[in-house]
Amino acid sequence: MQTVGELGEFGLIDRLTKLLPTSALVVEGIGDDCAVLRMHDRLLLVSTDLCLEDIHFRRDTLAPGQIGWKAAAASLSDIAAMGSIPLFSLVSLACPGNVKVSYIEELYRGMSNALSSFGAIIVGGDTTRSEQKIVIDVMIIGEPLGNRFLRRRGAIPGDLLAITGSTGASAAGLHAIQHGHAEPALVHAHATPHPRIAEGQWLCARPAIHAMIDISDGLAQDARHIANASGLGVNIAAARLPLIDPLAQYCAENRLDPLPFMLSGGEDYELAFALSPSDANETMNAFASEFTTPVTIVGEFTDEWTGGRLDGAPSLLTGFDHFKTPSCPD
Amino acid sequence: MQTVGELGEFGLIDRLTKLLPTSALVVEGIGDDCAVLRMHDRLLLVSTDLCLEDIHFRRDTLAPGQIGWKAAAASLSDIAAMGSIPLFSLVSLACPGNVKVSYIEELYRGMSNALSSFGAIIVGGDTTRSEQKIVIDVMIIGEPLGNRFLRRRGAIPGDLLAITGSTGASAAGLHAIQHGHAEPALVHAHATPHPRIAEGQWLCARPAIHAMIDISDGLAQDARHIANASGLGVNIAAARLPLIDPLAQYCAENRLDPLPFMLSGGEDYELAFALSPSDANETMNAFASEFTTPVTIVGEFTDEWTGGRLDGAPSLLTGFDHFKTPSCPD
Repeated sequence: MQTVGELGEFGLIDRLTKLLPTSALVVEGIGDDCAVLRMHDRLLLVSTDLCLEDIHFRRDTLAPGQIGWKAAAASLSDIAAMGSIPLFSLVSLACPGNVKVSYIEELYRGMSNALSSFGAIIVGGDTTRSEQKIVIDVMIIGEPLGNRFLRRRGAIPGDLLAITGSTGASAAGLHAIQHGHAEPALVHAHATPHPRIAEGQWLCARPAIHAMIDISDGLAQDARHIANASGLGVNIAAARLPLIDPLAQYCAENRLDPLPFMLSGGEDYELAFALSPSDANETMNAFASEFTTPVTIVGEFTDEWTGGRLDGAPSLLTGFDHFKTPSCPD
Repeated sequence: MQTVGELGEFGLIDRLTKLLPTSALVVEGIGDDCAVLRMHDRLLLVSTDLCLEDIHFRRDTLAPGQIGWKAAAASLSDIAAMGSIPLFSLVSLACPGNVKVSYIEELYRGMSNALSSFGAIIVGGDTTRSEQKIVIDVMIIGEPLGNRFLRRRGAIPGDLLAITGSTGASAAGLHAIQHGHAEPALVHAHATPHPRIAEGQWLCARPAIHAMIDISDGLAQDARHIANASGLGVNIAAARLPLIDPLAQYCAENRLDPLPFMLSGGEDYELAFALSPSDANETMNAFASEFTTPVTIVGEFTDEWTGGRLDGAPSLLTGFDHFKTPSCPD
C-alpha cells in the first residue's frame, strides 16, 4: 500500500490522470500549466494554485499583501506559460477565526493588485473557517490570443532551451529571509515575483517557439518537464546561466554555490521555452527590441537520450516535488 | 481591530466585495452561488467550494469516495442554483505524505462519479503536500441554457417560497453518525447528496420562477439570502415543511425536534425558489409530471418587513456561518 509521499507529486498526477475520464471538449487536460477547454467556438484556459501556510508561506516572514501577491502570481504565471491572457480569478480562502479582518483585506489587496497588473480581476470564490492555518487557492481563467497557445510538449531535437530573466533570486531571497539576512533585491524577487504575461504572449505568437513552461519548480525540473512531454532529453550549460549581481554577491558573502539556486530554486516565475536554432538570432533580437526583460539561451534539446543533463553529464537536477521536498513552492 | 470570527462569513464577504474592483465583463460577481462572466457572446458560470478535513468532513466517519462525492456535489449544486449546465471542474488537493495512494484515488473517483452523473469532468487542478489535514477545493465551470440563468435576487412581494425535496435529512444523518446511530437513509442523504441539476434547469426556463438558491447552509438562512438580495422579507410556515419518514422516525426515537434540522440543517443541496403565486398551481403540476422529486410551497416573500420569520414571528432562523458556527458544512 504505497503512500502519496512515496509515489511523489508527479507519480500521483499520472495515476489520477489514468483514473479520470476526458472528453472531446478538453483540448489539453491534466499535465500542462493550464487546462485548455473548448467552449463552442472559443478556447478557455483554466488553472489553479493552492498555497498553504507553513508549506508555501509563513505569516511571520511575509506581509499579507506579499502572500496574496505571490499566490496570485503563481496562477498568473500558468497563463503566461501558455502565452495567453488572464481574465478572471476565483479565490478560495480558509482562515482561523482569530485572524484580523484587516489582515485578510491586505491579503486580498495583494492578490487583486497582482491580478490587476495584468488586466485580471477576482470575480468570486469561497471563504471558510480553518482550525489554525490559512489556505489560499487561486483559480484563474484566461483565453488564448487568436486561438493559439503553447504547450509543454512540442520541442524538437536541436531546439535551444531559452529563459526569460534569471533564476535563483527567489530561492536565495527565501534563504536570506530564513537566515535573517537583509537582501532587499533577493527578498523582493521572492515576495513580489512578476509573471511574464506580456513576454509569454509575444513568444506564443512566434512559430519559432515550439514549447513553453513557467519556471515554478526550478529551471532544471521545469526544463525536464518540456523534454519529457516532448519525448526528448535536455542539456543545460551551467556557464550559460545568467547570474545576477545580487545573487552572486549574496552567495560570495555567505560562501554559497549559486548553481543550486539557479538550477533548483523555485518560484522565479520566469519562462523557459524551446526555440528553433535557425530562428534564434532573429527571435532574440526582436525580443530585446520589445522588452527590457533579458532572454538567454541556456541549453538544448536532443533525441539522443532522455531526461536532464548538466554540461552533458547525467544529473539528478532536482527541483521541487510537493510531496517529496521538505520545503516547497507552488 | 476586529477578527474574522467576530465579523462572520457574510460580513467578511461584504467587506471584500467593497474592496475588489469589478468589470463590465462580470455579469454577476461576488455574492451569488456562481459568478457569471461574459466571454465574447457567451456566458460562463464559475464557482468553487473549499472543504477542509475536520471542519467539513472527517476521515473516520466518511469513506474517501463519499468525501469526494460530497465535495463535488457542493460545487455542482451551485450550478443547479443558477439553473445551468455543469461542464468542467478543477480540483485542488492537499494531503499529508502518509496518506495511501489508493485513498486519494477513491476520493477522486467519488468526485469524478458525482461530476459524471451530471455530464461534467475533472480537467485539471493542483496537488500539494499538507502538514496533517486533507484540503479539497472543487472549482466548477458551467454555462447557462440559452443565456438565461437565475439569481438570488429577483423575488417580488407576494412570491411563494418553494423547495425541491425536503430538508434536514443531511444534518440528521451527520447527527446519527456523530452519535453512533445506524440510520442508512439519513446517512445516505448526508454522504451522497444529489444536486438538483435537471430540476434547476427546468425551473430556470420558466418565467414564473423569479429567484433561486441552493440549500447548503440551511433552509432558513438560504431563504433569507433570497429575501435579502431581493430587498424583501420571507416567512416560513413550519407546518408546511415536508417531514420525511426517516427524519420523523429518527427524531421520535431520539426525542429530538425535527424543526431545527429542517430549518437550519445544512448540506441538503435542494433548491429554494421564489414562485409567482398566479402561476404556482400550473408550475407545481408541470414539475410533478416531469420529475419524481417532490416540490413544496413552504412560505412567502413580503415587502412589509425584511429578514426572516417563522410562522409570522421574528426569529433568528440561524443557519451556518463558516466563521461563527462551530461545525459547518459547505
